[in-house]
Amino acid sequence: MKVGIIGASGYTGAELLRLLAGHPEADAAYVTANTFRGTPVTGLYPHLATYAKMAFEEFDLEKALGSAEVFFVALPHGKAMEVVPGLYEGGAKVIDLSADYRLDSAEEYKEWYGAEHTSPDLMREAVYGLPEFFRGEIRGTALAAVPGCYPTAVMLALAPLLAKGIVSAEGLIADAKSGVSGAGRALSLGAHFAQCDESVGPYNVGRHRHTPEMRLYLSRLCGSPVSLVFAPHLIPMSRGILATCYGRIEKAVSTAELVQLYNDFYQESPFVVVLPEGEMPQSKNVRGSNFCHVSPLVDAATNTVIAVSAIDNLVKGASGAALQCMNLMTGCPEDMGLGALPVFP
Amino acid sequence: MKVGIIGASGYTGAELLRLLAGHPEADAAYVTANTFRGTPVTGLYPHLATYAKMAFEEFDLEKALGSAEVFFVALPHGKAMEVVPGLYEGGAKVIDLSADYRLDSAEEYKEWYGAEHTSPDLMREAVYGLPEFFRGEIRGTALAAVPGCYPTAVMLALAPLLAKGIVSAEGLIADAKSGVSGAGRALSLGAHFAQCDESVGPYNVGRHRHTPEMRLYLSRLCGSPVSLVFAPHLIPMSRGILATCYGRIEKAVSTAELVQLYNDFYQESPFVVVLPEGEMPQSKNVRGSNFCHVSPLVDAATNTVIAVSAIDNLVKGASGAALQCMNLMTGCPEDMGLGALPVFP
Amino acid sequence: MKVGIIGASGYTGAELLRLLAGHPEADAAYVTANTFRGTPVTGLYPHLATYAKMAFEEFDLEKALGSAEVFFVALPHGKAMEVVPGLYEGGAKVIDLSADYRLDSAEEYKEWYGAEHTSPDLMREAVYGLPEFFRGEIRGTALAAVPGCYPTAVMLALAPLLAKGIVSAEGLIADAKSGVSGAGRALSLGAHFAQCDESVGPYNVGRHRHTPEMRLYLSRLCGSPVSLVFAPHLIPMSRGILATCYGRIEKAVSTAELVQLYNDFYQESPFVVVLPEGEMPQSKNVRGSNFCHVSPLVDAATNTVIAVSAIDNLVKGASGAALQCMNLMTGCPEDMGLGALPVFP
Amino acid sequence: MKVGIIGASGYTGAELLRLLAGHPEADAAYVTANTFRGTPVTGLYPHLATYAKMAFEEFDLEKALGSAEVFFVALPHGKAMEVVPGLYEGGAKVIDLSADYRLDSAEEYKEWYGAEHTSPDLMREAVYGLPEFFRGEIRGTALAAVPGCYPTAVMLALAPLLAKGIVSAEGLIADAKSGVSGAGRALSLGAHFAQCDESVGPYNVGRHRHTPEMRLYLSRLCGSPVSLVFAPHLIPMSRGILATCYGRIEKAVSTAELVQLYNDFYQESPFVVVLPEGEMPQSKNVRGSNFCHVSPLVDAATNTVIAVSAIDNLVKGASGAALQCMNLMTGCPEDMGLGALPVFP
Repeated sequence: MKVGIIGASGYTGAELLRLLAGHPEADAAYVTANTFRGTPVTGLYPHLATYAKMAFEEFDLEKALGSAEVFFVALPHGKAMEVVPGLYEGGAKVIDLSADYRLDSAEEYKEWYGAEHTSPDLMREAVYGLPEFFRGEIRGTALAAVPGCYPTAVMLALAPLLAKGIVSAEGLIADAKSGVSGAGRALSLGAHFAQCDESVGPYNVGRHRHTPEMRLYLSRLCGSPVSLVFAPHLIPMSRGILATCYGRIEKAVSTAELVQLYNDFYQESPFVVVLPEGEMPQSKNVRGSNFCHVSPLVDAATNTVIAVSAIDNLVKGASGAALQCMNLMTGCPEDMGLGALPVFP
Repeated sequence: MKVGIIGASGYTGAELLRLLAGHPEADAAYVTANTFRGTPVTGLYPHLATYAKMAFEEFDLEKALGSAEVFFVALPHGKAMEVVPGLYEGGAKVIDLSADYRLDSAEEYKEWYGAEHTSPDLMREAVYGLPEFFRGEIRGTALAAVPGCYPTAVMLALAPLLAKGIVSAEGLIADAKSGVSGAGRALSLGAHFAQCDESVGPYNVGRHRHTPEMRLYLSRLCGSPVSLVFAPHLIPMSRGILATCYGRIEKAVSTAELVQLYNDFYQESPFVVVLPEGEMPQSKNVRGSNFCHVSPLVDAATNTVIAVSAIDNLVKGASGAALQCMNLMTGCPEDMGLGALPVFP
Repeated sequence: MKVGIIGASGYTGAELLRLLAGHPEADAAYVTANTFRGTPVTGLYPHLATYAKMAFEEFDLEKALGSAEVFFVALPHGKAMEVVPGLYEGGAKVIDLSADYRLDSAEEYKEWYGAEHTSPDLMREAVYGLPEFFRGEIRGTALAAVPGCYPTAVMLALAPLLAKGIVSAEGLIADAKSGVSGAGRALSLGAHFAQCDESVGPYNVGRHRHTPEMRLYLSRLCGSPVSLVFAPHLIPMSRGILATCYGRIEKAVSTAELVQLYNDFYQESPFVVVLPEGEMPQSKNVRGSNFCHVSPLVDAATNTVIAVSAIDNLVKGASGAALQCMNLMTGCPEDMGLGALPVFP
Repeated sequence: MKVGIIGASGYTGAELLRLLAGHPEADAAYVTANTFRGTPVTGLYPHLATYAKMAFEEFDLEKALGSAEVFFVALPHGKAMEVVPGLYEGGAKVIDLSADYRLDSAEEYKEWYGAEHTSPDLMREAVYGLPEFFRGEIRGTALAAVPGCYPTAVMLALAPLLAKGIVSAEGLIADAKSGVSGAGRALSLGAHFAQCDESVGPYNVGRHRHTPEMRLYLSRLCGSPVSLVFAPHLIPMSRGILATCYGRIEKAVSTAELVQLYNDFYQESPFVVVLPEGEMPQSKNVRGSNFCHVSPLVDAATNTVIAVSAIDNLVKGASGAALQCMNLMTGCPEDMGLGALPVFP
């Protein structure tokens, strides 16, 4: 199976190349990066040694469609919608890692992303690429919108609670901690080593762009609109997200019962590991892998559930999830090429 | 003024020595560390170069009382109460950095610390050493119990909201992120570099020993019992605490009004810096200093206040606060020897 | 092929389990850790989720020989020689990751490791497990001694220069920088987060135990005794070694010629990547992988070659090299199960 | 004493402001940053809370000379020489932190910095601001050129050896390890968190611009031209430099004798701490301070001295050294305002 990566020069593009190198059925046949056209892949990413003979190309729709049958679009939001329709209408399967096809309303897109959506019809056609919730729909689609890294972590932590009515849909809080690679390869003061090393701080509290997709799909899960505070923080580490989520208990429940409930909920999901009662996720325990560790805890004194999840933002939070979608969309086993264990310590 | 440090070989002891070196009125005249008796201070802490001629001694009450008039007790909980009564009854001023005199009930102490308290009377006599709340009482006491690092951060963030009835005393959440030096100098797998570097994770959620003192003093502030979830996390950095606190709004309020309220509340507190509206604390911005940065934010969509504070756990969260207490207890200006600006980046 | 890991609870043991999970021909069938007998593998290492049903056992020679045909011995030096002879004489293939069989003289072993060697005959039988130099010998042996992490990095950097007489065998300097996982999982102040985070420093300069094996095998390579200063440093990162090696030029040569020479020298070595002229290794570019990046540079002004290499100390510096030896010793392709690309960033 | 800082928005500017806040005789009266004119100091650097009412101005020579009598010029090389002559000729004392007045030849300046020097006469008038070597000259000058961070570390390590003829002036090697703040506040891929975190690598080996000043002043010290390889490396930490220097022994000597020699050599230098025999500098032990830790070691087996030094690149390597020069140039005690102990851990 030949695949293309559009916008391959960023960290998610590089991570797709890394993962594809270990996938037995798929080969990166066409990789583009307009700014770096002509540059060898190893010129930007010396770690991708097996791609020494491949160079980034400038995107060309016709050439793309002639070179591959499945495409990963790893462009920034706003740019993705410039290429996705052409690839999709050209008959390719498309897995978009941007935010452009995650929401279902062009109005909400405009509100959060500040731009008109140019293919609102496709927004409705796209399937949200979170296999743990929408496995069946992803199998049947030709356009998957890979979730944001934070929503993946937050929703995998909260979903069982909301689906079973354990916690109130009101007053949910998601306090998330992310490694700095989440900011991508583009330079910024916030990702400047001397600024963020040895420091922790919140940013975009209450207005981070990942907020609406969490609300949308969690509301779907529990059948009523959720109210959720989302507070992301930057942590001095390269990779990893830890989401600490708080919900008010509606039904009396013990931690042991919740662990059982989570195990049942994720029985069919090969990458979600529910930790034994009393153990808590550490982001390093999933580093470099497509696994998600998750653990619920009841704080009886305050009638609160604390549900914690950990993912690698570049794998399960982006490129690994994209490959997982590709597997489902192309009939491969869901975990093909994704089984590598985390790199610890 | 001659001061003694009992249990000076840990990080808070070393930090007291560092700060005292810059205090114009106080000199470390007697430093003990039973395990390291005879070892030069610079043998353990080469950075304390000006103490090259001083060695740790074994604690002796008589010698102590003959050597100094003010004592910092930097022993672990349970050990502090073995020496504090003797020093206090000997007429010295005592500033205890352990947990032994923070609570007001021996029963609660036993519940959280698992041991009988051997001087419950002194628990009631001790003043909680948070100058921002109890400045007057500290001035008049000879025994101050320095707050835990987490409670300092959490309470400075939440106090104005609770004191003014802005948020409900129910459903408070404090999600705290701490550097690893909070675990002290004693070796543990949790503080082993390869384990905690490049990782973030929660620990002791709902059962951390700093929980009861937060509940006690916040309840006093707002005049009714607070319900608070406390979830501490370990961050791959040496120093710093960031506390992200969430409360349900009871009275409609804007962020700008809250910023004003915080400024008013901390008007007399030289070390609390209320950030301008829209700016958020970063732990690195207070690193190495006694400052606390604090900032409230209204999330209107969810009717929540998010109040964030940052301190250096070893300074404002321990040894700096202890010196601040000493200044008040001995009639020095509150900020004497503590004005050094943070070391950034 | 069933393999055993003796002493599997340390970082190199965990790393062997991680790598074996991706090896198509070998399965971990027997894993021991006397201190942790009965503990599930995931109890110590939650990241090894696929081993959730396996527990560490207490070592038993008979059971071992009945359970597996190839053994990795991941015990500390001194302990390895207690089990290696039994396994070897029992007919198994043995790959020892300790220092016990790296040297060829019991006297030198005693000098550097402070203990009598109890199986000096096996020292002479063992093959030094550096496939880039001794590929053929490793294929034919049943006992391989995996090199130390530092010697691997230093020798891969210097070998082409010494083999071709480019630099003098006198006055060699190897200034090495290692991540903290090199110190293993055992607790120590030197590996305590708050001590080594945000710091760099040398240790054991001139007396590190990896020194004699470097001198021994580099001397063999160039046919005359080398004189080498070895200065290791600890770097605040979990994994990775960078070796910066300096040699005095004996034959006029350009950087371009050296790059060609290195490419020729490592032509048959799938894991050694010689960087293009002007690029320098960064330890992160090999992180989590069995690759070694290497690059020589001529400083004409001082008549010096600077040869720099980077490896992951736990993979190419330990467990990956061990698997590479296993592949050679059992007739598998040298790179089987080891081709995963580095995890960057 | 009123001082001005020209180009105050970079890290060395911010560090000057931090240090001046603790200096009893000097006040920052005029701070410029053309790009950020009008921005409050705390807008860029929230940690500098005591400067909340001060804003960066655009540089104006007349206003400068009317506002202050001593100036720190913290501009990039090439820019400094645009303002230094005016300030100097206007009668002010000038301490330049750039490279513009460190060398003594406009030709060499052009060779290494790629630009014509516009005030070569002043190059010869300027005194190299390393008080440990040129204390007397600095006292008498009105123009000091603060050394580069690397040269300070390397020269303080090597000077006693060269001054006393202990090692050969040929074949010196300085392998230096620097924190990332050395790259300044300007954004670059090399200082992007995700790239340099958890990684170590060399850069500009053999062609770093700090090379000629080391050669120049070390040659002066030993009276003959030195040959020195300089290999800088980037370390994943914010601050700190460790220099590991290697020299071939010319005169038989023991480590103990060298420790004595270093103590004698630095007897008058309040900031250089010679460690006891057997202890090695760690960069964290000088973090945030103006101290330099230094330690020599004889490796008899290879006839080599390894001399290691540690400084904080932003303090002793830049702004602290600048203040030390100011003290000397204005008749203050050399250590005034600079005695704060390092912030460890």
